Amino acid sequence: MAEVNNKQIILKHYVSGFPKESDMIATTATINLKVPEGSNAILLKNLYLSCDPYMRNRMNKLEGSYVQSFKPGSPITGHGVARVLDSGHPNFKKDDLVWGITGWEEYSVITAPETLFKIHHTDVPLSYYTGILGMPGMTAYVGFYEICSPKKGEFVFISAASGAVGQLVGQFAKLLGCYVVGSAGTKEKVDLLKNKFGFDEAFNYKEEQDLDAALKRYFPDGIDIYFENVGGKMLDAVLLNMRLHGRIAVCGMISQYNLDQPEGVHNLFCLIAKRIRMEGFLVFDHYHLYPKFLDMVLPYIKEGKIVYVEDISEGLESGPAALIGLFYGRNVGKQVVAVARE
Amino acid sequence: MAEVNNKQIILKHYVSGFPKESDMIATTATINLKVPEGSNAILLKNLYLSCDPYMRNRMNKLEGSYVQSFKPGSPITGHGVARVLDSGHPNFKKDDLVWGITGWEEYSVITAPETLFKIHHTDVPLSYYTGILGMPGMTAYVGFYEICSPKKGEFVFISAASGAVGQLVGQFAKLLGCYVVGSAGTKEKVDLLKNKFGFDEAFNYKEEQDLDAALKRYFPDGIDIYFENVGGKMLDAVLLNMRLHGRIAVCGMISQYNLDQPEGVHNLFCLIAKRIRMEGFLVFDHYHLYPKFLDMVLPYIKEGKIVYVEDISEGLESGPAALIGLFYGRNVGKQVVAVARE
Repeated sequence: MAEVNNKQIILKHYVSGFPKESDMIATTATINLKVPEGSNAILLKNLYLSCDPYMRNRMNKLEGSYVQSFKPGSPITGHGVARVLDSGHPNFKKDDLVWGITGWEEYSVITAPETLFKIHHTDVPLSYYTGILGMPGMTAYVGFYEICSPKKGEFVFISAASGAVGQLVGQFAKLLGCYVVGSAGTKEKVDLLKNKFGFDEAFNYKEEQDLDAALKRYFPDGIDIYFENVGGKMLDAVLLNMRLHGRIAVCGMISQYNLDQPEGVHNLFCLIAKRIRMEGFLVFDHYHLYPKFLDMVLPYIKEGKIVYVEDISEGLESGPAALIGLFYGRNVGKQVVAVARE
Repeated sequence: MAEVNNKQIILKHYVSGFPKESDMIATTATINLKVPEGSNAILLKNLYLSCDPYMRNRMNKLEGSYVQSFKPGSPITGHGVARVLDSGHPNFKKDDLVWGITGWEEYSVITAPETLFKIHHTDVPLSYYTGILGMPGMTAYVGFYEICSPKKGEFVFISAASGAVGQLVGQFAKLLGCYVVGSAGTKEKVDLLKNKFGFDEAFNYKEEQDLDAALKRYFPDGIDIYFENVGGKMLDAVLLNMRLHGRIAVCGMISQYNLDQPEGVHNLFCLIAKRIRMEGFLVFDHYHLYPKFLDMVLPYIKEGKIVYVEDISEGLESGPAALIGLFYGRNVGKQVVAVARE
């Protein structure tokens, strides 16, 4: 088979401060749509690519981190949904659908395909496997059920609540019978939280002069569970409003990722006075729970008990803007890049 | 019976910043050495009083805190060891020895004596019930065994390690087979850690320009367990040196208690990357474990497997200086005030 063109999104250089679209560039390489004879690799046609906050860290020059840096001059990598075009691996065959780590390009060769998940349920939008049925969905599931030790009736606060993870955590908490409040950065997102995702309350943190006062308004009796996605000032205000024996699942700190020096958090003494457990987690440690997670969440989606909002940007070329948009809060719901539909 | 004089240490006013001896004053009241007819109260002769870092918070004007403010114009209260002189309570009789919350005075009337612990083992120094056999001992026990989930061979770091709690945590960790390093603020204390308490290593944090570098020197493979007594810059440096799935028991933050605004902690993102559990606790929640604790620690003391260092200051009048000294690191070992010997 002849080689074909392969559009790619390349990281030009390591980034400091807020990333810009121009830190990435679209280019075109060529690729042979067959895996080499005798190889274990598989060849993917990428359909949907996922924009996730943790990708900001990979634009830094990292050493000894839990993730690897992107390689300047090479395509960005991240989670995505793809179709197998050719396979040298016994577990995969042509036309299998998979999700997992792939390249920001039209076609990718995956040399260690064991890390990919096969998609068996196709009666939901395939793009969902970048979100509610993929890494962010598992993150919400693990963070809420495994880390927060939630109980019916508890008071739950979620920051960045309209994002891929936050919207699910809130709905899980509502299904369990918790009181749920979320924060987000626009009126549109706040409306979404209250009217679409069924949060009890939501507020725009950008319109609050005093986050402590805002939290006291929504949680006069305090917060049992905080699902932390933002860090910094919000965390400081939350610490003042936690209840005794509260739990903080530390999932992300997106407000800090573009700062040269992270903001200081001043109210950690509250951990003692209120006997708070604060625990960081990474979804990668918990993927053995994925089948259990699917068994729970697929029926919820089909019965309409959980809704899910995506912000789909069209075409690989739109990828840099979509990814950068995360850090300006431009996305409404889970940010996805559609490279191809089938 | 006639009234007798009762020397007392009074808090003059609420304190901000570093406390001074002159924030307290010695005075003399009178007291009748009988409890009123029909009362449930007991009358104590105070023997040993405990100086504990958490007492600094009680000098503040507090609202809704886990402890109550001292009352300006009234005697300070705190943990102590005392002998019962008279009792209107069925559980206590004359000459019983007790430990628990009492007043900084020669004689105290305790109106709710149910909170006191009776002392049954008197073949150890009575002053030990202000420390290794009292609240600080239980703090070390609960914090290490219940909060840190320690395992043999793990790497343990303890700050303020020569204090009442730290010296015990380190010895518990050594008995379990951990590698143990402590920090303290003088050469004398560092020597004590290494030569008396059997820590593997110890260092003087005041002599380290770069706490991160110091920790990397003692923990080239990182820290599994951090027993946090100080907060601030040390916590920030520790976060950079924690291992995957590390645990931080947050027991105290003495470096922050005299600051108007606590220092900011910048490296909390490490909680995520390293999946760290950070948990605050208060010993009060765990007193049901006290008999189990005594069963463990009394034989260790009698067999010499655990040693214990006290810094005993003589006379009630020496109390203010002893208490203030905690915040300047003047005490070597557990700070006690001896009011009377029997």
